[in-house]
Amino acid sequence: MSEPVGDIGLIGLAVMGQNLILNMNDKGFTVVAYNRTTSKVDAFLANEAKGTKVVGAWSIEELCAKLKRPRKIILLVKAGPAVDAFIEQLIPHLEPGDIIIDGGNSHYPDSIRRTKELEAKGLLFVGSGVSGGEEGARYGPSLMPGGSPAAWPHIKEIFQKTAAQVNGEPCCDWVGETGAGHYVKMVHNGIEYGDMQLIAEAYDILKRGLGLHEDEIADIFTTWNKGVLDSFLIEITANILKFKDDDGEPLVTKILDQAGQKGTGKWTAIAALDAGMPVTLIGEAVFARCLSGLKEERIRASKVIAGPQKEAFKGDKKQFIDDLEQALYASKIISYTQGFMLMRETAKELNWNLNYAGIAQMWRGGCIIKSVFLGDITAAYQKKKDLESLLFDDFFNKAVHKAQPGWRRIVAQAVLWGIPTPAFSTALAFFDGYRSEVVPANILQAQRDYFGAHTFRVLPGKENAKLKAGQDIHINWTGRGGNVSASTYSA
Amino acid sequence: MSEPVGDIGLIGLAVMGQNLILNMNDKGFTVVAYNRTTSKVDAFLANEAKGTKVVGAWSIEELCAKLKRPRKIILLVKAGPAVDAFIEQLIPHLEPGDIIIDGGNSHYPDSIRRTKELEAKGLLFVGSGVSGGEEGARYGPSLMPGGSPAAWPHIKEIFQKTAAQVNGEPCCDWVGETGAGHYVKMVHNGIEYGDMQLIAEAYDILKRGLGLHEDEIADIFTTWNKGVLDSFLIEITANILKFKDDDGEPLVTKILDQAGQKGTGKWTAIAALDAGMPVTLIGEAVFARCLSGLKEERIRASKVIAGPQKEAFKGDKKQFIDDLEQALYASKIISYTQGFMLMRETAKELNWNLNYAGIAQMWRGGCIIKSVFLGDITAAYQKKKDLESLLFDDFFNKAVHKAQPGWRRIVAQAVLWGIPTPAFSTALAFFDGYRSEVVPANILQAQRDYFGAHTFRVLPGKENAKLKAGQDIHINWTGRGGNVSASTYSA
Repeated sequence: MSEPVGDIGLIGLAVMGQNLILNMNDKGFTVVAYNRTTSKVDAFLANEAKGTKVVGAWSIEELCAKLKRPRKIILLVKAGPAVDAFIEQLIPHLEPGDIIIDGGNSHYPDSIRRTKELEAKGLLFVGSGVSGGEEGARYGPSLMPGGSPAAWPHIKEIFQKTAAQVNGEPCCDWVGETGAGHYVKMVHNGIEYGDMQLIAEAYDILKRGLGLHEDEIADIFTTWNKGVLDSFLIEITANILKFKDDDGEPLVTKILDQAGQKGTGKWTAIAALDAGMPVTLIGEAVFARCLSGLKEERIRASKVIAGPQKEAFKGDKKQFIDDLEQALYASKIISYTQGFMLMRETAKELNWNLNYAGIAQMWRGGCIIKSVFLGDITAAYQKKKDLESLLFDDFFNKAVHKAQPGWRRIVAQAVLWGIPTPAFSTALAFFDGYRSEVVPANILQAQRDYFGAHTFRVLPGKENAKLKAGQDIHINWTGRGGNVSASTYSA
Repeated sequence: MSEPVGDIGLIGLAVMGQNLILNMNDKGFTVVAYNRTTSKVDAFLANEAKGTKVVGAWSIEELCAKLKRPRKIILLVKAGPAVDAFIEQLIPHLEPGDIIIDGGNSHYPDSIRRTKELEAKGLLFVGSGVSGGEEGARYGPSLMPGGSPAAWPHIKEIFQKTAAQVNGEPCCDWVGETGAGHYVKMVHNGIEYGDMQLIAEAYDILKRGLGLHEDEIADIFTTWNKGVLDSFLIEITANILKFKDDDGEPLVTKILDQAGQKGTGKWTAIAALDAGMPVTLIGEAVFARCLSGLKEERIRASKVIAGPQKEAFKGDKKQFIDDLEQALYASKIISYTQGFMLMRETAKELNWNLNYAGIAQMWRGGCIIKSVFLGDITAAYQKKKDLESLLFDDFFNKAVHKAQPGWRRIVAQAVLWGIPTPAFSTALAFFDGYRSEVVPANILQAQRDYFGAHTFRVLPGKENAKLKAGQDIHINWTGRGGNVSASTYSA
């Protein structure tokens, strides 16, 4: 067999894999392409990869034989058992120091496990978030690699050249140990769910509330894309709204209102619940997709449940649209605040030293949530590495203060109109809770102690002989029952 | 050793275990009491159980020896490894047909597993929800047993006599196979989180919004307890608000606003995410507790983030309080609607034949969420066994319609005031989404197809040559890139 020529191998020739190969090829790397159904290799070489340096492989053995050492092999296959199956198939053909990179949407606990398993065999593992969809993969994705730190020097050049560049900086840096890359990608996806839901709610308000046509809404999004909301998702939404079917109708009005999901939004919500962090906006975004899925049930419900009397909007439309821009912006600030709070908490739990400015920079370009906004987040964390939350940063603090009045008007109006705004509303509820020195959880604690002897603590400044600081206090509220507190059993 | 005298044994003498024993004793059963730290057995017999028929046991062996066959042993210990540890200790002393009952807050997958493991050994297992806290356990809890069906005839009399009785009906019936009892208890607890959060928000609006004193708020709750909100939690909240510290101040104002949680609310939210059902109110209630936990961060935030200008309420207070009652009632209807939707979905997945009228009846009395309201739910499911959701029932449909205007006014006002109402708001958002034939998820699907080739389907009635019914459609939105759809990879 001839001298190996491949700088990197890639397994999985679906659209993302194909595009990532073509992108790496453009950057000067020789990529060896393999797919389980090998006819895809032939088709890829004969079509999309024609005239490139891409090399085909028709077996795992051939793929490995064609790679320079240490071998670097990216898997872009369906997350789950397929990843483990390919790893098993690869191992016999690899040598110590070779690197397996999982670029799929794997769940981070799997990446933690795989890092340990492969390192135990002398191999290196990288679990890398890859975001940007078809376009990103082809012209520069956001790459979020984590796993075996020893792998980074070997893949750094390929990864950083392949990634999107913003202001001369690559949207790729080393994220952290074991599952950190996929964790950060998961949070990215959760935030993406949130951003999309916010846009959908804004569209709904403009359409059902103001009664605007898709062309008018497209113009509003185009305008917004020149301001604080400047981002890929706002841009493509404008394009989507302008896209016409053959009969001249906006295609979007013909699309079934039932959203699919691949699970990463759900993972983020579950991770938030497990970490005890109130990442409410992503939670609502995931649930909104679930509700959209109940299409038949909604149709039946729509026939028997009436909303409020529909009233035409009588206010200042221009002001209202400005308010809506502010509502979307403020809600987005909250969503990212929550997302970074979640990462902060998890990093604490798992002893990861996450570089928040770096993460924001990785998301700044290439990926689905890329935006000018993420440049501001990068700046905030560059200014203060251990920023407690975005709301403590001057820039965002001022932004949210400015947005507040319009944000409140929008949510109140949507509520009176009967247009659902779960994401706008929960963002505002979080904001009002977060800035409340005292929330009514004293009621919950009193109830829990009343019915279950769960005890409570005293509010600082209210201590007395009976209510001592730092003590779990149980009160016999009823005068009946015992004084046993529920230390070991919970009702 | 003398003839066994025990009708049932109980392990775990924390407050719930002690009270359940005394309750069963009152109903004429001879209970054998055991605790790992055996000094608790002595203390219990010498104090709370003095003068009863309760029998002590100072070892597992003695406990088993003192029980009539088939032995019935309730574990009321901390959920998790302790349950498995006690089961392991019990097995050598049991004979085929003996019944181990786990009355703790076990996670239902554990109960599914334990049912299978014990049945494989010829033993029977029951995972039973027990709700009602100290008071319920003592005077009649809600009991939700599921597991090995063969166990039910042997425990039915003890369970149904020990349970709360409402209108001559016990708040206990057989729930279903394997983990069904603990599943239903989990949903009960999730709903309890929701009910408590709604009450806390109502308190907050009355206190921070209207500026009322705890005594005035107590009177409002007392009034509400005579109407549609008549329930244990409303009743105890009135009692809590009236409870004074030695200096005459309401004790509740001295309680730290940082809510604890034992995990069952979180489990329900995760189960909802896994089942793909939008159980948003419980989700928000759990997150609200998480946010309450960030007390120090909230204090710091309160100093740098200002809310809206505080304006005194100028409207009709009486009307506002009536609106609030309706907001609480409507939100509660939504929360139970969501909870029953979740059970319906899970029963479908796990092939459980759940009796929804029976479940509502089990919750009707004895437990924390007991209420007149649950009698109405029982009636709704008795009228129509396969009711799609509570909102399709005439009674609740009318109730929610009547509540709607006030509900919207409350949420809008809270938003303008800057008082967080995550649960009221999400309930309303769900209601408006559920009754929407079309939601803006078409935007999400278009975005997903645009950036990730995830495909979409056509809205019924909008089909044409390019947009065919039942097909996954991918559009080349940009004129660039390929036509490959993302069948195997998701970005």
